[in-house]
Amino acid sequence: MTAKHSYCDILIVGAGPAGLMAATWATAQGLGATTRIIDKRNDKIFTGQADGLQCRTLEVFQSFGLAEDVWRQSNHMLEICLWNPDENGRLHRSSRIPDTIPGISRWQQVVLHQGRIERLFLDKIKKSSGDQCRVERGVLPEQLDIDESKIDDPTAYPCTVTLRQLSDEEATPPQLGKSAPNGLFRSALAPDDTPTLLQNKAGQREVVHAKYVIGCDGAHSWTRRSIGSKMEGESTDFVWGVIDAVPITNFPDVRNRCAIHSQDSGSVMIIPREDGLVRFYIQISHSIQNVDRNTITWEAILGAAQKTFAPYTLDIHPNDVSWWTAYVIGQRTADDFAKFDRVFIAGDACHTHSPKAGQGMNVSMMDTYNLTWKICSVVKGHSPRSILKTYQSERRKVAIDLITFDHKFSRLFSGKPAKDAADEAGISLDEFKHVFETGNRFASGTSVNYGPSLIVGKRAEEKQDDGTAVEEPGALSKPELSSNRAGETRIEVGKRLNTAQVVCQSDARPWQLVDWMPSDGRWRVLVFCGDIRNGAQLSKVEKLSEYLEHILVPQYTPEGDDVDSVIEVLTVSKSPRLEVELTDYPRALRPLTTRWHQPGTGGTGQSKVKSQDYWKVFTDDDTYHEGHGHAYEKYGIDSRGATVVVRPDGYVALLISLEDHAALGEFFSRCLLPASQHLWTRSRGAAEAVEETTIKHDESQLNNPLTNVGREAAVGIGAI
Amino acid sequence: MTAKHSYCDILIVGAGPAGLMAATWATAQGLGATTRIIDKRNDKIFTGQADGLQCRTLEVFQSFGLAEDVWRQSNHMLEICLWNPDENGRLHRSSRIPDTIPGISRWQQVVLHQGRIERLFLDKIKKSSGDQCRVERGVLPEQLDIDESKIDDPTAYPCTVTLRQLSDEEATPPQLGKSAPNGLFRSALAPDDTPTLLQNKAGQREVVHAKYVIGCDGAHSWTRRSIGSKMEGESTDFVWGVIDAVPITNFPDVRNRCAIHSQDSGSVMIIPREDGLVRFYIQISHSIQNVDRNTITWEAILGAAQKTFAPYTLDIHPNDVSWWTAYVIGQRTADDFAKFDRVFIAGDACHTHSPKAGQGMNVSMMDTYNLTWKICSVVKGHSPRSILKTYQSERRKVAIDLITFDHKFSRLFSGKPAKDAADEAGISLDEFKHVFETGNRFASGTSVNYGPSLIVGKRAEEKQDDGTAVEEPGALSKPELSSNRAGETRIEVGKRLNTAQVVCQSDARPWQLVDWMPSDGRWRVLVFCGDIRNGAQLSKVEKLSEYLEHILVPQYTPEGDDVDSVIEVLTVSKSPRLEVELTDYPRALRPLTTRWHQPGTGGTGQSKVKSQDYWKVFTDDDTYHEGHGHAYEKYGIDSRGATVVVRPDGYVALLISLEDHAALGEFFSRCLLPASQHLWTRSRGAAEAVEETTIKHDESQLNNPLTNVGREAAVGIGAI
Repeated sequence: MTAKHSYCDILIVGAGPAGLMAATWATAQGLGATTRIIDKRNDKIFTGQADGLQCRTLEVFQSFGLAEDVWRQSNHMLEICLWNPDENGRLHRSSRIPDTIPGISRWQQVVLHQGRIERLFLDKIKKSSGDQCRVERGVLPEQLDIDESKIDDPTAYPCTVTLRQLSDEEATPPQLGKSAPNGLFRSALAPDDTPTLLQNKAGQREVVHAKYVIGCDGAHSWTRRSIGSKMEGESTDFVWGVIDAVPITNFPDVRNRCAIHSQDSGSVMIIPREDGLVRFYIQISHSIQNVDRNTITWEAILGAAQKTFAPYTLDIHPNDVSWWTAYVIGQRTADDFAKFDRVFIAGDACHTHSPKAGQGMNVSMMDTYNLTWKICSVVKGHSPRSILKTYQSERRKVAIDLITFDHKFSRLFSGKPAKDAADEAGISLDEFKHVFETGNRFASGTSVNYGPSLIVGKRAEEKQDDGTAVEEPGALSKPELSSNRAGETRIEVGKRLNTAQVVCQSDARPWQLVDWMPSDGRWRVLVFCGDIRNGAQLSKVEKLSEYLEHILVPQYTPEGDDVDSVIEVLTVSKSPRLEVELTDYPRALRPLTTRWHQPGTGGTGQSKVKSQDYWKVFTDDDTYHEGHGHAYEKYGIDSRGATVVVRPDGYVALLISLEDHAALGEFFSRCLLPASQHLWTRSRGAAEAVEETTIKHDESQLNNPLTNVGREAAVGIGAI
Repeated sequence: MTAKHSYCDILIVGAGPAGLMAATWATAQGLGATTRIIDKRNDKIFTGQADGLQCRTLEVFQSFGLAEDVWRQSNHMLEICLWNPDENGRLHRSSRIPDTIPGISRWQQVVLHQGRIERLFLDKIKKSSGDQCRVERGVLPEQLDIDESKIDDPTAYPCTVTLRQLSDEEATPPQLGKSAPNGLFRSALAPDDTPTLLQNKAGQREVVHAKYVIGCDGAHSWTRRSIGSKMEGESTDFVWGVIDAVPITNFPDVRNRCAIHSQDSGSVMIIPREDGLVRFYIQISHSIQNVDRNTITWEAILGAAQKTFAPYTLDIHPNDVSWWTAYVIGQRTADDFAKFDRVFIAGDACHTHSPKAGQGMNVSMMDTYNLTWKICSVVKGHSPRSILKTYQSERRKVAIDLITFDHKFSRLFSGKPAKDAADEAGISLDEFKHVFETGNRFASGTSVNYGPSLIVGKRAEEKQDDGTAVEEPGALSKPELSSNRAGETRIEVGKRLNTAQVVCQSDARPWQLVDWMPSDGRWRVLVFCGDIRNGAQLSKVEKLSEYLEHILVPQYTPEGDDVDSVIEVLTVSKSPRLEVELTDYPRALRPLTTRWHQPGTGGTGQSKVKSQDYWKVFTDDDTYHEGHGHAYEKYGIDSRGATVVVRPDGYVALLISLEDHAALGEFFSRCLLPASQHLWTRSRGAAEAVEETTIKHDESQLNNPLTNVGREAAVGIGAI
């Protein structure tokens, strides 16, 4: 049988959260027609699985217009209660701490079943891609080859992947046990079934030629093995069980996140969930040697929990068990996250750890959120391939930090409480509380700080990477432009831009600034212009506007495209809104465009002719109903103002003065390619790009509204 | 041909906003299988039409879980700019005022295309009814009869309505003019086509036997004519045009709501909309005599606007015109809103006025929001028919107020500005501004204050009705229990309960209190219990709890149903959250239930067995991330506490002391029927009720999940 051959820009292996984030991000950038996502399983997840969503994850969800639905449907975790033995060995609440450090983000940690999160992604992918990108389920990758001679050619398809369509039986994982839905088959306690599947030769095959492959295929990653990357780290012997259920209990804190250390009967962690459910993480055994996975039942796990809870009661009616599983803790990281910067691995494929800090799904999604815009930018010809190297340097460092944190945290969690200060084998509850508190900052995802590179303009001394050699910055920031006093919302190069409330000059509406920076692949230049009523300040702003309008932006913007389609300029002014008019701002700051997008609607509107864009200039001023945002103070910017470059993924790339045009030009000259070299533009339509580069995903599917954008009369009819 | 006969509880005529609100409300109360909604048109609305959403409307939308989507998709109107001739006759901005009075509501006025609002309703109806209630389009009511002998029998179907299925041609309104979608056919300038349709005898007929009919069939209402109700009022001669478009202009305030009075070239109102659109209301002529409706074009309307705008320019590209129409202003109210309290009219069917204050759609929806819970409660046998009389007394008063307001407002808007103080024919701009400002309070919908009746326990002196004789209150409130100093959020009997932030005792989550009072047909008793650490206060609360648990609630709750299924008790405590445990509150305040509902998720969850309901007790305390709600202060409640009864539509019915059990009992004895008389209960399932009352809507559709609720093992297994 001859296998069918096909072509695509991006092949995503695995449709869990990391894979779905990659597909969401690629389709949001218009690559829906040339991105494919496969999964060997044919089932979606309806119960159980990972479910904590951290602040930074919600921020990213918001940038896709998904956070509000999650916020509404989820359970919010506000308070952590620590329960420990008192001096008589009796369980008591020893302290309460906020679950999310106040001020760290506009969001707090929430919990929502993974299936609902995946549903939001699937809907978004469908909408962004015009239903062209769908998860292809029951599809197994069998063979991966990379043609080394082509890896540097931006138009080449050096990756060849053989796919096999599985039978229904092969694609459906067997359930272990029958009493309630459980996830043992996904647990590290269950063997990987890929080797067995690979032995089978039946089924239809397809040979996919891809420019890039992203392996999001979990802890047993086939992609990782295919590129020869190795997991490094260790396992513990601790065995934990998990039950999702509606509990019947007289324990007072069952709707709070709790860490319960009993004197001699193990530990339990409580994670209250949506729909009245509660998740219990329950220590079953100190040693995997004592456990036969075929005998693990939810009743046995509940029995262990009841001992920890004593003297409080805990009962669960069999009909109210939603899901359960068991797992062993281990901490490992892959030594390589990429091969030739053509094949990448992300998520569980490159880091595994315990689930109790609610990190797995979050760090996994943030991996592909970091990676996918870079790949898309290279595929479109907007950026050189050199930016791809930063994926490993930025994310492998996060993985290593995660493993270190989890190692400490899970040992403290699994250990026995110290009886007294002299009990060196027992764990100190003060230390546990301290690790919990400091861990919360790390766990929120907001403290991630990417090291210097061509897309993070800071000094080489500020190393925050895993040692991967990346191209050095072309321009350096002036950190002193953002005052230290600003705290959590200070603008720090390498960290994500936190949000602040600003007011739209044209219509008085208060906005979170970041809501005008949705994830759509564009770079942003934020002009903190200061107060333009000051003549000297206005003059600086006018010069910068001239530079942006006539030199910087045209260089990277294809002729005929809206001026904001590659680099968008947003202004945050310190001038009181009622003292100036929109037209007092230079034209480059309030351009004529055919596009606008109301944040949160999930769509980008477009008029037929160019007209005033009223949503580019914001002020730091009072509002009628929402108070004053104090954005300058929060960002630590003073009356001099500043220019801030923000990457498509929301991380601060550069912080310079309004006058430093040279640094701005130098920065973009390293990470963007001139418009003449673009392979994909809005005005030409990807359809042409498709032809030029012989992409042949499936020709019947090329009716992408995004690729067939015809521009009608893109000229104003008397604009100011 | 023999007509088919069928039966339903509620027949709604007309699927505009008022009709859809009625259907949404009926399905939210479980009557999806026995409610029908018909419309003679076969088209949905995709452009144009009414679009302002006032604060109270958004509050009601929120109670159905719809407001957040509207908030996200809509344009928010924050500022009103008044433009007038200066002393030289040149247009200038004379003042700015907030569009929504600060503090009046948690929402502000927004604008969203009617079609999107109707889509939200349709989705909600589909979800609540399990797709059993759908708009039947192209269906014309031809004949209505009421059997007077049966009107007092709660199980009877006294209304007989003959329906005819229209042909596609009949059901599609002709467009006048071709240049862009327009709404002339819906305007008062167009003739009513119902008389013509009624002459045609072709098409299939059905005779519907309904318990209740709600006529939401617009200004030309067939239902109104059928019950012999007459419109009273007057018309003006002012002719106005409307254009929805993306404008090209140098006018600085085009993204604000503006009222522009030119010296000699008429008036324009600007309503900025979603998706970059702007709506312009443009005065075309002072006299309808000068206008031939066949010659009205959007270009002519634009021409009039350009004169008003001078010296500012205003252009619109033909491809960027989304919709346009023209209308004459008239103000009329129906003399009767109901016939035998079996057939009701609502919305434009009973009040017409100008659209510029953004009232039409809002007041219309609030009509059926007021009416439908009453009908449903009577249909279910929960309430006596005497509550139905309050629809006319409450809503006709609102309509009369609306007409009075609009009369004044539209004359001021259409008039010429006074040249100076001596110019008595001209309008005073100070007066206009004053009317605008005070009108905004009325327009917000939050100042509506229903008069005394069996469902509003206040003194007869406080007349706020239209003169309809309604049953008098069974219990009187003590208004002094809520301090005057509380302002906009004070608890006032007859007005809607405003919201305040509270904290959930069990999980520390901040909530808007009203989000725990979704529109589901239940009455709420709010127990403002004060601080239960005070022994005397706790004793009062314990006595009230005893009364609620053992006397009041069981009387109205069918055996086997959850205790909160007819009357839900919610507690707002003044005790600091960290100083007490949930279990310190009496059991009646934290009952065992099988249901919970996370506000905003749109669903009601249900466990298999009864367990602790953790979402009934809230405190007025600080939060980790959202500050302190100061709910007691906002509501004007002091340390004595209070008991507040809230109607299913969110209006305050009774405000009494914690000790006044007698008043509580007396109040409910007038408006609720004992559980033994219920025709419809959750535990028996409506399926039985259907059988008992021989409802035969369409037997194939009786698979309503809501009617087939079988209860499994509704007993706890060891609850505290």
